[in-house]
Amino acid sequence: MRAKGVDAVIIPGTDPHQSEYVSDYWKFRDWVSGFTGSNGTAVVTLNAASLWTDSRYFLQAEIELEGSGFELQDVEFRGDMAVLMQWLAKELREDDTLAIDGRLFSLMDANRLEQMCGENGFLLATDFYPDETIWDNRPEMPRNEAFVHDVEYAGEDVESKLTRTMEKVEAAGAESILITALDEIAWLLNMRSSDVDFTPVAIAYLYLSDKDRVIFTDDELNKEVRKHLDSYNVRIKGYGEIEKFLNKRNVNTTIMLDPYKVSDTLGQALECDKVYGSSPVEALKAIKNEVQIDGFRHAMERDGAALVRLFKWIEETAPSGTINELDVWERGKMERAKSDLYRGDSFEMIAGYREHGAIVHYTANAQSASTLQGGGLLLVDSGAQYLDGTTDITRTVTLGNPTEQEKHDFTLVLKGHLALSRAKFPVGTTGVQLDALARMPLWQESMTYGHGTGHGMGHFLGCHEGPHSIRTNLNPVALEPGMVTSNEPGLYKAGEYGIRTENILLVVEGKKTEAFGDFLEFETLTLFPYDTRLIDLSMLSAEEIKQVNDYHQMVLERLLPYLNEEEAAWLQNKCASI
Amino acid sequence: MRAKGVDAVIIPGTDPHQSEYVSDYWKFRDWVSGFTGSNGTAVVTLNAASLWTDSRYFLQAEIELEGSGFELQDVEFRGDMAVLMQWLAKELREDDTLAIDGRLFSLMDANRLEQMCGENGFLLATDFYPDETIWDNRPEMPRNEAFVHDVEYAGEDVESKLTRTMEKVEAAGAESILITALDEIAWLLNMRSSDVDFTPVAIAYLYLSDKDRVIFTDDELNKEVRKHLDSYNVRIKGYGEIEKFLNKRNVNTTIMLDPYKVSDTLGQALECDKVYGSSPVEALKAIKNEVQIDGFRHAMERDGAALVRLFKWIEETAPSGTINELDVWERGKMERAKSDLYRGDSFEMIAGYREHGAIVHYTANAQSASTLQGGGLLLVDSGAQYLDGTTDITRTVTLGNPTEQEKHDFTLVLKGHLALSRAKFPVGTTGVQLDALARMPLWQESMTYGHGTGHGMGHFLGCHEGPHSIRTNLNPVALEPGMVTSNEPGLYKAGEYGIRTENILLVVEGKKTEAFGDFLEFETLTLFPYDTRLIDLSMLSAEEIKQVNDYHQMVLERLLPYLNEEEAAWLQNKCASI
Repeated sequence: MRAKGVDAVIIPGTDPHQSEYVSDYWKFRDWVSGFTGSNGTAVVTLNAASLWTDSRYFLQAEIELEGSGFELQDVEFRGDMAVLMQWLAKELREDDTLAIDGRLFSLMDANRLEQMCGENGFLLATDFYPDETIWDNRPEMPRNEAFVHDVEYAGEDVESKLTRTMEKVEAAGAESILITALDEIAWLLNMRSSDVDFTPVAIAYLYLSDKDRVIFTDDELNKEVRKHLDSYNVRIKGYGEIEKFLNKRNVNTTIMLDPYKVSDTLGQALECDKVYGSSPVEALKAIKNEVQIDGFRHAMERDGAALVRLFKWIEETAPSGTINELDVWERGKMERAKSDLYRGDSFEMIAGYREHGAIVHYTANAQSASTLQGGGLLLVDSGAQYLDGTTDITRTVTLGNPTEQEKHDFTLVLKGHLALSRAKFPVGTTGVQLDALARMPLWQESMTYGHGTGHGMGHFLGCHEGPHSIRTNLNPVALEPGMVTSNEPGLYKAGEYGIRTENILLVVEGKKTEAFGDFLEFETLTLFPYDTRLIDLSMLSAEEIKQVNDYHQMVLERLLPYLNEEEAAWLQNKCASI
Repeated sequence: MRAKGVDAVIIPGTDPHQSEYVSDYWKFRDWVSGFTGSNGTAVVTLNAASLWTDSRYFLQAEIELEGSGFELQDVEFRGDMAVLMQWLAKELREDDTLAIDGRLFSLMDANRLEQMCGENGFLLATDFYPDETIWDNRPEMPRNEAFVHDVEYAGEDVESKLTRTMEKVEAAGAESILITALDEIAWLLNMRSSDVDFTPVAIAYLYLSDKDRVIFTDDELNKEVRKHLDSYNVRIKGYGEIEKFLNKRNVNTTIMLDPYKVSDTLGQALECDKVYGSSPVEALKAIKNEVQIDGFRHAMERDGAALVRLFKWIEETAPSGTINELDVWERGKMERAKSDLYRGDSFEMIAGYREHGAIVHYTANAQSASTLQGGGLLLVDSGAQYLDGTTDITRTVTLGNPTEQEKHDFTLVLKGHLALSRAKFPVGTTGVQLDALARMPLWQESMTYGHGTGHGMGHFLGCHEGPHSIRTNLNPVALEPGMVTSNEPGLYKAGEYGIRTENILLVVEGKKTEAFGDFLEFETLTLFPYDTRLIDLSMLSAEEIKQVNDYHQMVLERLLPYLNEEEAAWLQNKCASI
């Protein structure tokens, strides 16, 4: 910093694609600070070092930052640059220089930073790359083997996707578009890779116009992939060639950019006419087609069967005190991997026993892993990537002798989960309108949970995706048929236990009426029973009891074909009428 | 228009204060088009004339516009200038001139119009005043007698209100503020008048700085009012002097303006430094103090007692076929006027019998008024202005022999109303998060209503006020203790009947918790029983039945002191346990 005349540097936890999960190559913030959470930004001045994250990670950050010299800032941080600037305003003096690596900041964030620097009298440098000089033993940039995601699973060929995208680009008044989100590129090109943990994407950029289609990637592209891309006239260039390419392009095109996704460095490299707007691909990708939906249904069946084997094993083994939280993780992967279509987990499994369940983003390691025993609640949040769909499910189970309090709390969470599942709502309804349905039973007893209720999910792609959500945030995107969303209310009692119940729902058409318009509802895709031993029946209405029984009946019918006799008997018991 | 070189003119239904209810002096749109609804904008070109309103008024507009030459546009209009511009883009040619009366458009709307005119190649003139030349027999500008709203009712003196306002103005970086909303001025100065129907306000502007306080009004100010204003150093000038005053002020101040409220004409007249922001007064006014809340409670008692007399009379008289909807209105006013503190109705009563109840903003007149009889549903939405508070209540009652369908529908609406009333929610919750609670019982049967669920309400002021709301709109304003809101789900079956159940709720503090933060809940202010003959008991949970009984018990206890023996017996019957 001193050599470059830099007084402060902001180091975010993302990559040039604003990814949620990033490849090790980009984990400079982790290397500098020691903090490994998915959301977190470090700021270093010549005298101080601080880290911001959100409350899910406070506990983890405190442990990981110990002795690092980084001070954890005790405020909820979700990427708002103003929060950092507030701190910097006290640490820096007028005419000091704040530096960032412009590749890791969206145009929007960099723009906001520049504005705030102006207000505070700081200078902003966007070309500071400390990772390139001080990071010893930096991991290699991943260059894995990409593969074609067959249209048999994807349900729509590349030509159709590119055509629909360009229609939106042209409707927005642009002639071309630069796509930087890795999952959008993977979806558009029906192509996958393994450059990033948990999300099967290639590190790449994609440029589209009506005359030209170019992917920029260093991934290994075998003959099949090359033939596939060639058949859609997609040219291939190296990942590093993007900037030069964009410069050349400058005079010829009006390009569409998503200012929340395109990096400042790339955005600034472009001198041609620009149209700013949210990427049309995100919205197109969110609406699943019939083939994808059918794939989800099959994936959920295999996933549910794997979970039957996992939870049966846990139930039988835990009382002996011979397995711990990490073993649950390993066993889960093993059971899921029995499916030919399994291509890895969709996120790091959370297996939280007793008080660990109350840590929302708990990840067990060799030191922390609790040994399971008879008694207590176990929260397992896990999911997988299958060629025909992604899964994400949370179940909380008792390992024996549930207390009245545990049953009471579990049933409150279940009531919210059931209310959202059975909701019907008019076309045009947004997630924020539905969020309270899942929270109300808790709210009525002065309790709540600090995370969202529902996130979108990719199809053999990211387990979190937009543009819709079911949260307290005022997200204006309406739910539409073909969207999927999680439904995951929870309750966390620090030092005691955590409860979360999560299914994936599909938005489907409901009744169409003359007088009141058209309605939508949910179809539950996830297939695994709720732990009925934790239900306080006196707290459920007749309607809720029927809803549980109907769901369990469906789970049973759909999973039985995948189970051996012993497993079937276990599931029958779990799905018995309440 | 031809004389001035104008090709099209937009004529809104508001006044220079963006009021909901406007004095007759400003009803030029009504005079031109014949349409009298509270929301509606006319556009006239040299060849065509159109009118836009929202679906509440479609039926009324169709009738009122008949033979006027105005065509009713069949789109939902809530003030978005883009809707008008879409039509104008087809009617006008490049370089045509669109004219408006800049006094009737907010800075924001005029700005938006100017931008859209630019895009379409039209010219915008903001100084076109056809009302001044072509409107024969124009009503006089009202100059009624203003009066002091005693601090005994207002609960806070003017000095304190002005001080709190100026703190917000200074926090926003301004030195002065121009307040144009009539209810904000009335609240700030503890002053009322009767220049506008239903809302007891004076037509005025208010300028505030730390050095100067000036009201601009032509109202009659008696000795008491002058002394009152003088004691807070508020100078008095004529209504028409505002522009000259602002011009003089130009060099000396940084002024705060609410671009959604200040008219384009006034905004443009100011050449000094401006700070744009939503008026701090709206937010301060929304939080009622203890004296106001206590006033509301008493006003609701007197209002409830008046309604006991009204509904008892309706029930006893309707079967004879001798009264109609207008008689209900007259009788309601008479019963309410028995209170010394009554100062008029807070809006035009809606008394809709049978199919008239399905017209959301139905107003009976001598031609349309239905005669009441035994049988059928009667919807009565009414409210009053009392010195100690404003009321707004809707009840739907059966005039005998309710059908199963009527009971079913009434109970669905009631379930939503009850769910919202008993909701508890964390600090920070916004209305859009709660809206679906009131709609869900209807949504589950593929029905809904086209209006909002809850609006704020003034204290002896407008019966609709912001900044909060409970609607499907993404209004970011959180509910806070001291705010009041209506709770009014409904169901409208065209040609059959309308159902609406409305109480006014007060936001109050609930439990404070260590683990989950602080919670809020509602106290119901409105006091009048639901018609239990319309409840299908089999559709209510034990919790809902208890809620109804508890509410009726409170209604009974609070209203009995105001009733004679016969009235008390009637109410006891209405409040009997279900």
